[in-house]
Amino acid sequence: MVDELWNDLRRVREEAPLVHNITNFVVMNNTANALLAVGALPVMAHAVEEVAEMTALAGALVINIGTLAREWIEAMATAMATARERGIPIVFDPVGAGATTFRTQTCFDLLGRVAPAVIRGNASEIMALAGSAVRTKGVDSSAAADAAEDAALLLARRYSCAVVVSGAVDLLVDGKRKFLVRNGHPLMPKVTGLGCTATALVGAFCAVNGDSLTAARHAMTVMGICGELAAAKAAGPGSMQVHFIDALYNLDAEQLRAHGLDPR
Amino acid sequence: MVDELWNDLRRVREEAPLVHNITNFVVMNNTANALLAVGALPVMAHAVEEVAEMTALAGALVINIGTLAREWIEAMATAMATARERGIPIVFDPVGAGATTFRTQTCFDLLGRVAPAVIRGNASEIMALAGSAVRTKGVDSSAAADAAEDAALLLARRYSCAVVVSGAVDLLVDGKRKFLVRNGHPLMPKVTGLGCTATALVGAFCAVNGDSLTAARHAMTVMGICGELAAAKAAGPGSMQVHFIDALYNLDAEQLRAHGLDPR
Amino acid sequence: MVDELWNDLRRVREEAPLVHNITNFVVMNNTANALLAVGALPVMAHAVEEVAEMTALAGALVINIGTLAREWIEAMATAMATARERGIPIVFDPVGAGATTFRTQTCFDLLGRVAPAVIRGNASEIMALAGSAVRTKGVDSSAAADAAEDAALLLARRYSCAVVVSGAVDLLVDGKRKFLVRNGHPLMPKVTGLGCTATALVGAFCAVNGDSLTAARHAMTVMGICGELAAAKAAGPGSMQVHFIDALYNLDAEQLRAHGLDPR
Repeated sequence: MVDELWNDLRRVREEAPLVHNITNFVVMNNTANALLAVGALPVMAHAVEEVAEMTALAGALVINIGTLAREWIEAMATAMATARERGIPIVFDPVGAGATTFRTQTCFDLLGRVAPAVIRGNASEIMALAGSAVRTKGVDSSAAADAAEDAALLLARRYSCAVVVSGAVDLLVDGKRKFLVRNGHPLMPKVTGLGCTATALVGAFCAVNGDSLTAARHAMTVMGICGELAAAKAAGPGSMQVHFIDALYNLDAEQLRAHGLDPR
Repeated sequence: MVDELWNDLRRVREEAPLVHNITNFVVMNNTANALLAVGALPVMAHAVEEVAEMTALAGALVINIGTLAREWIEAMATAMATARERGIPIVFDPVGAGATTFRTQTCFDLLGRVAPAVIRGNASEIMALAGSAVRTKGVDSSAAADAAEDAALLLARRYSCAVVVSGAVDLLVDGKRKFLVRNGHPLMPKVTGLGCTATALVGAFCAVNGDSLTAARHAMTVMGICGELAAAKAAGPGSMQVHFIDALYNLDAEQLRAHGLDPR
Repeated sequence: MVDELWNDLRRVREEAPLVHNITNFVVMNNTANALLAVGALPVMAHAVEEVAEMTALAGALVINIGTLAREWIEAMATAMATARERGIPIVFDPVGAGATTFRTQTCFDLLGRVAPAVIRGNASEIMALAGSAVRTKGVDSSAAADAAEDAALLLARRYSCAVVVSGAVDLLVDGKRKFLVRNGHPLMPKVTGLGCTATALVGAFCAVNGDSLTAARHAMTVMGICGELAAAKAAGPGSMQVHFIDALYNLDAEQLRAHGLDPR
């Protein structure tokens, strides 16, 4: 997998795909910096007057509902419709799905109109999107992981897309394949918006690789390895963010190999 | 006070209270990072459709009018009403009160509907909220400090809340008690939004300590000590922000003691 | 020019002019930090209810259309009208002009109502604003640079303003003079929003120097030198941003001289 991943990373750096983000206020700056660092070109634009035109220029569309407001939903739907018409991959981040009805319903509304190439969320967000159809299997320690996997599979089938469940170990599924990404570091969730950064990087890799699950696997592996590289230098979450961006920018094939890609 | 403060900090880290922020665009990222670093869970959400539901999940509500817009005011009022109904502490930051009529009036409007647990601002903001009822006492060097204290006391009584006046020395009052926090560093105001960070940390401490003035004192002391720790390593305001977040994350009881808490 | 620049920088630090920014979500935090680091006082405010009052307090107004939305345009126009009435310099950043019709038309609309003191953009943005009146001169390697210069001159005459075309070498013109700023570093465009930071610093220098072209030249030179100083310490774009802010804060006359100001 190292060679494939390295090929994709080189393509991102050489082709510098435009990634159109309709995302939340909290992470716009560090998401843009992560996309630049990995070699892509970020653009943030959300006006309903221009999103169709902007999406049409892009290699991928990232939709993130983090600081959702009603007036942004139409822009998200318009951008997603444009992406579908033009075959541009959509990566969807259901931030906070399950926390409020507004968030959960907006996800159902948007995903029901246009299916994405990839959905990336944490276990509780993925389970919220899967809804009551997921049965928890008891109280044993593996119940949460099993429930998240069931939910991911359900979403993968419902929307014919790849699904990434982020966590200490990332789970990636589509209707046929399953991958785990074990790279990463416990300091990562202490930096706000690294999940949103992961979603954006999935967008960058989808722009150069038409196999969405593989693109997502590459992006999540890059996230995890850069997290490990950054944590080795960081003194806390402040310096973690700084080193993470530096690591993304400097990541080379040697580091990919040294950080032990999971053979599955 | 070290033991009490340390107890509160440990509770924040153990309980990880959800802090719901309706705050400004400038500081959303570093506020979220500061809340994560201190051990709390930040959420930023401002849609009127969901704020009541989100606030109901939270251990504290932080309202900050930094990049105010008319359509956010209803969301702020709704969130504050929910917090009052459920006994969730509200921390209010009147950014720029006094600079424009819109800001000052919005503060009066919001505070007049629901009184917060704590108001935190700089001297000019606190004086603007106190309005003409504050008499300046002349032109001697202590006039500004005296006027700010009078204003803080007036607000503390008007809203039956704690009031924090941030500055080189922070002044904290409620109707009965008064504290000064002398920790801090001159580089802190050169980092944008550390005042907003202070407000958010007051929220985190209010979530674990029902005595609002004590919670605010603990938060402002943590701010000041982390500012001192960060400044000792910083080469300017850029690295100051990074080291500040790292210091928040690593702060221990030894550092609290070494940094000479004011005995008052 | 070192003495003149140093004089302006000292004036910014001593007078701490208020710079009112109506700018994009991506860069609000690092723009505010850059303005603080250079010695100015940033304020971000965009509500139509208050922008006139806020602009009236400011030494310069910065308009940046990065994450444009329809409801912000009226606020921008109102702030610009206030600035014109009061002789407050306006710096305009046409982020993404040419990428969508909405952006290009909004620029024409705003600039047609009130001419700014300075327009700062990259070559493609400046050429988009100049529109069809710019003739490309062929396919030789200097064509792009020539076309951008023609466009800059056209805009400088159309709006009687200074125009900055940012790039590896910055081009600055008004109707009569032309300057090049060769300072800078290739890592700068890998940090999101350093162009927006440049625009904001032009605002800070315009607040203390009524000669807009000279003010812009000083700001762009400070940007370039701080970019060089930061790059010397940076390990990638993450640490570049941190060191850049530190460099702005610490910049001294010795460094200005050592970094070889272009004599033109």
